[in-house]
Amino acid sequence: MSTAGQVIKCKAAVAWEAGKPLSIEEVEVAPPQKHEVRLKILFTSLCHTDVYFWEAKGQQPLFPRIFGHEAGGVVESVGEGVTELQPGDHVLPVFTGECRECAHCKSEESNMCDLLRINTDRGTMINDGQSRFSKDGKPIYHFVGTSTFSEYTVCHVGSVAKINPAAPLDKVCVLSCGICTGFGATVNVAKPKKGSSIAIFGLGAVGLAAAEGARVSGCSRIIGVDLNPSRFEEAKKFGVNEFVNPKDHNKPVQEVIAEMTNGGVDRSVECTGSIQAMISAFECVHDGWGLAVLVGVPNKDDAFKTHPMNFLNERTLKGTFYGNYKPRTDLPGVVEKYMNKELEVEKFITHSVPFAEINKAFDLMLSGQSIRCIICMEN
Amino acid sequence: MSTAGQVIKCKAAVAWEAGKPLSIEEVEVAPPQKHEVRLKILFTSLCHTDVYFWEAKGQQPLFPRIFGHEAGGVVESVGEGVTELQPGDHVLPVFTGECRECAHCKSEESNMCDLLRINTDRGTMINDGQSRFSKDGKPIYHFVGTSTFSEYTVCHVGSVAKINPAAPLDKVCVLSCGICTGFGATVNVAKPKKGSSIAIFGLGAVGLAAAEGARVSGCSRIIGVDLNPSRFEEAKKFGVNEFVNPKDHNKPVQEVIAEMTNGGVDRSVECTGSIQAMISAFECVHDGWGLAVLVGVPNKDDAFKTHPMNFLNERTLKGTFYGNYKPRTDLPGVVEKYMNKELEVEKFITHSVPFAEINKAFDLMLSGQSIRCIICMEN
Repeated sequence: MSTAGQVIKCKAAVAWEAGKPLSIEEVEVAPPQKHEVRLKILFTSLCHTDVYFWEAKGQQPLFPRIFGHEAGGVVESVGEGVTELQPGDHVLPVFTGECRECAHCKSEESNMCDLLRINTDRGTMINDGQSRFSKDGKPIYHFVGTSTFSEYTVCHVGSVAKINPAAPLDKVCVLSCGICTGFGATVNVAKPKKGSSIAIFGLGAVGLAAAEGARVSGCSRIIGVDLNPSRFEEAKKFGVNEFVNPKDHNKPVQEVIAEMTNGGVDRSVECTGSIQAMISAFECVHDGWGLAVLVGVPNKDDAFKTHPMNFLNERTLKGTFYGNYKPRTDLPGVVEKYMNKELEVEKFITHSVPFAEINKAFDLMLSGQSIRCIICMEN
Repeated sequence: MSTAGQVIKCKAAVAWEAGKPLSIEEVEVAPPQKHEVRLKILFTSLCHTDVYFWEAKGQQPLFPRIFGHEAGGVVESVGEGVTELQPGDHVLPVFTGECRECAHCKSEESNMCDLLRINTDRGTMINDGQSRFSKDGKPIYHFVGTSTFSEYTVCHVGSVAKINPAAPLDKVCVLSCGICTGFGATVNVAKPKKGSSIAIFGLGAVGLAAAEGARVSGCSRIIGVDLNPSRFEEAKKFGVNEFVNPKDHNKPVQEVIAEMTNGGVDRSVECTGSIQAMISAFECVHDGWGLAVLVGVPNKDDAFKTHPMNFLNERTLKGTFYGNYKPRTDLPGVVEKYMNKELEVEKFITHSVPFAEINKAFDLMLSGQSIRCIICMEN
């Protein structure tokens, strides 16, 4: 029996307050409106960004809210005007969208869609400014247009990538945020040559994905930089073959790396968001050809500061957002890279919990034990 | 009668003291040693860098010295081991060289040769640490390996580009420094697309050459930024079709440009060396795809400072040196662009003086009247 056009009652993990454990509740999910689709989420995973906005430190709190933005699912029904997707399609919802009509979407170089660019302050759908989630008649806010910690969710069609239905959703769900962010930063932006050297700052999920991009690109020296030496062993699986802990040295890490590499690495990728790491990542690349890519999100009050001669000596500094992938256009191709065994995804998945135990995924991340924990909606 | 192997007596403009008028003297020019060539200079022009080191403010003074580094000439004789050049070849000496053996020369991306990279502190030849110039038995220092304010000079073979002998040396001599620096910054580094927008900071010779690069690239909006409005009329000849004087606005020029261009220009090129202009040039490019190129040389104590989100919103900042041209490999091709009437050189040449009146060229530059003044050695 079709549920299209009907309100669906289902389970969702609701965050009622900042920093308090999520509560699995029965919620109502309204049908998709114009240019929207309703998805049945099968697998979701937890990313630091969920934790950051759930903790809501120094932010305008927006609760109750349904978090979650790394996920895989199936289209349940589509709203008016949706022609690209139909019920049954396998999809990855994405926290940032692609309208295909704005200057950014039309540019070959940008993925920062004017209409559907990530907006962490918005808790409703852009179509009508309303939420599609409610409980006892009261709205529950959305999160970055995805809210995948629910058995069903509603997304703008521009935030949903249709993928190969043969791809296992319990694996490729992790491609909808962190892995693509790091992998794309290397393969789309840093673009290291075969046999070159690269430094990766921060060996969390995004940094390990950047290292995976370096491994796939054939880099010969992949230098991991982290303050936590326990990450070094795990990082070897991702191609990292040298390690630098800034705490082990009494000079700036950029000088340590320059000495290790006869003047600097060919490329660097910064995945921590620390302003000092950003400066080090830039200053550790070789003059003449070095390129540094910033991925990690800084604090509001940070200032990037360097001597301009570091640029004039032919270094380049670029930032990237979501690995420069356009979600709808490019994500299917990333899934194919996994299907062709070029990109390895399994090694990112360290844990798995049933939906009922979603708070365990938070504990695993906060204690630094997990890279990615898959949350299985159906058991 | 061949002068090869002989000391040549000729006229040179000697700077005896910082900031004092040059004095035309008879000097002795020793024969070229291993990997060196001796050139007969026919035309030279004056560049700000000559003036800067002649003024020697805040520098370790190195006098007496023969300045000059934009020039065209003919090979008079070659030293041991020189196989690429022979007497009679038409050449442009260049202030920075290309050894073709170091990591930079072997990199496709760099032109910052380890052996022959510009060195303004060195006043002698790298082969033996001696000068080839003398007067009354006392040495006179070289300048950036070129010292073209002399009828004859000695250069390392790696600092000499062999060009089409049909090219008029009184015109193409200006390609050996400033024009290539600005033109290459645009065509080799900023690489604007046809129909795109670009802002050029600073409308001196280098900035006008950057504008010429934008014109040749087919940019539709070429926005000139300068504190001196008298430069705007001249700049029209170089394709500049909009002007912004930061003094005319009570908000930062990057905001003015963003408002003019619906969020920012596609490309910018900074040719002043002012740290504030560098920051403005970076912050005035569009998010998603904007690229800013730094050309102007900053002061020692300057700090480039911006919010890192300006990078994370997919802006790129690059520096360039000599327009990323490899002198020996690429300069002959730039001369061909002039011969094919693609690149216009005549409009940069506003004045011409005989060698005896070289100090007039300094006056014209210091008073801001000239773009380039050609100094004719033979009359």
